[in-house]
Amino acid sequence: MDANPLLSPDDLEPTAPALKVVSTFNPGAVRFGKQVLLVVRVAEAPLQTSEAVSTLVYDAGADEVRTVNIPKDDPALDTTDPRKYRYGGRTLLTSMSHLRVARSKDGEHFVFDPAPAIFPAAPYEAFGCEDARITHIDGRYYITYTAVSQMGVTVALASTEDFKTFKRHGVIFPPYNKDVCIFPQKVRGKYICRHRPYKSEFNPAAIWTGYSPDLLSWGDHHMTLAPQGRGWMSERVGAGAPPIRTEAGWVEIFHACDEGRRYTLGAMLSDLDHPEKIIARSSAPVLEPQTEYERAGLFGDVVFSNGLIADADGQLTVYYGAADSICAAAVTTIDEMIAAAKK
Amino acid sequence: MDANPLLSPDDLEPTAPALKVVSTFNPGAVRFGKQVLLVVRVAEAPLQTSEAVSTLVYDAGADEVRTVNIPKDDPALDTTDPRKYRYGGRTLLTSMSHLRVARSKDGEHFVFDPAPAIFPAAPYEAFGCEDARITHIDGRYYITYTAVSQMGVTVALASTEDFKTFKRHGVIFPPYNKDVCIFPQKVRGKYICRHRPYKSEFNPAAIWTGYSPDLLSWGDHHMTLAPQGRGWMSERVGAGAPPIRTEAGWVEIFHACDEGRRYTLGAMLSDLDHPEKIIARSSAPVLEPQTEYERAGLFGDVVFSNGLIADADGQLTVYYGAADSICAAAVTTIDEMIAAAKK
Repeated sequence: MDANPLLSPDDLEPTAPALKVVSTFNPGAVRFGKQVLLVVRVAEAPLQTSEAVSTLVYDAGADEVRTVNIPKDDPALDTTDPRKYRYGGRTLLTSMSHLRVARSKDGEHFVFDPAPAIFPAAPYEAFGCEDARITHIDGRYYITYTAVSQMGVTVALASTEDFKTFKRHGVIFPPYNKDVCIFPQKVRGKYICRHRPYKSEFNPAAIWTGYSPDLLSWGDHHMTLAPQGRGWMSERVGAGAPPIRTEAGWVEIFHACDEGRRYTLGAMLSDLDHPEKIIARSSAPVLEPQTEYERAGLFGDVVFSNGLIADADGQLTVYYGAADSICAAAVTTIDEMIAAAKK
Repeated sequence: MDANPLLSPDDLEPTAPALKVVSTFNPGAVRFGKQVLLVVRVAEAPLQTSEAVSTLVYDAGADEVRTVNIPKDDPALDTTDPRKYRYGGRTLLTSMSHLRVARSKDGEHFVFDPAPAIFPAAPYEAFGCEDARITHIDGRYYITYTAVSQMGVTVALASTEDFKTFKRHGVIFPPYNKDVCIFPQKVRGKYICRHRPYKSEFNPAAIWTGYSPDLLSWGDHHMTLAPQGRGWMSERVGAGAPPIRTEAGWVEIFHACDEGRRYTLGAMLSDLDHPEKIIARSSAPVLEPQTEYERAGLFGDVVFSNGLIADADGQLTVYYGAADSICAAAVTTIDEMIAAAKK
């Protein structure tokens, strides 16, 4: 898309004067009236000094965001991952994310709202709110997001009717889980989602499918797509935006990560009545990091999508985060993605 | 209890001639008519040879249990943990568990049923079915158990009315989770459970509380009790048998593990209307490994309880597994456990 990058940290002010916006990335996407809305992950950090590394943590007891400073010369501090500080057996994030709405009339030119949509406000969100996925069901918009704290990487649910006020529904997946997208309609009488338990001693970081009677509680879990081989899907996979219903099956775009921590996108087709059954899956990425803004940034060589807009004519706009830094979009069609999945 | 150990591998035959019973341990417990039933974890392994280590895996495709042999001199094989083989990046269990009913008239002298109650029969159970917890709700007995496979350590649900036929309800918690017990009645209109997500980069191995409308799907998760300090609770904690309702609150016995992998039991009291809120928790173990059969076995220095029987007069029989090898029991009272929790 010509307008890429669509949104970058220069496009908004930090939420406090002593902060900087580190990244604006991984947008959820939805059509709302005549507009396209993105719900963007905005990562902020304190302005850094020469003596210490500084990050932000929401303190639920005091209901305030605090700055945490760690002396740079502390031998217990490990800064090798630009996204995390490891410090004396604990892990902190180098930035704290909130979710912010950006609005557009054409799906290309977006303007950020002046205030956050979902800002850390609960103990489970102490380290931030990340990676929104939006599903429209019966007039309400449900937003899943990763809620991170010292209690773990969990998935929380919020909802809105107007994208001005947001209602929180609590933690729907306990740690360690991420990448939850809810399907836009019930299947066999139940709501459905994809989720992604993290890898452990026994299991790989695979995409799972779960069922729910009420969107709040989830069960009947099935492993759906596991990492495989030595290539682009070798290390982990995770669901993207909510799948799109077609006559051929549910169409979706997922992310994959290889052993070199390079993130790409793949396409998948699954059974309409049993979405835990995969019909076809692309053997090669449908999008991979190529441009400068995809290859370099806070965490380079990453394309990561959690927002799609499907038009009535079958055009598909894939919104994605690049290099954990900015928002971009690519245009394709539903038919192309079905064909890619079958290739 | 004088009859300890109550059940040991000598008390039953293996399910096939080429197998041996390794352990009979970690019993769930329930009063059923005039009897006390234990649902015991029975671990079996192939008779070992001098050339290879051998273990069992259920193959869902072929619907049969297969023997897996790994040459002892394979440098990719790690046998340092007596419960697991690590082999070329994968983990296998050294034995495969099923669940078996044992029946008693006095709560002390038990006889195993001649056949398994719940034997691996689903892909998620390929490595075994472990650690039953039984809850009686509206005439049905619900049994949660750990279902282990290469897809992860999950929690599955089964139910029965007669302890002869058992209905499977699938995976209720995706990996990595364990130690799920369901409360015996609804609270504020919802079913409740404890569960235990495994530790990860961000979170410790803590006891969580979840809510459900239907016993099958779970949400509204709250971290409830985290490991703490440098002593008996330093490494991990996990729920035991379903909590007992008293005027003082929900009473329960949990397990704790220290950095030396020594497992002990503690007592806890939680709020009747909000069981995720702890009222009191014992500062020292209420039971710790002391006898020979608790200190030595497949995995020594372990007491682990997932079955309790409460009498109308307040007596409490704590059934537990010792050293990952045998079943034992200890007698106390509900009042004693409340007092211990408050100490």
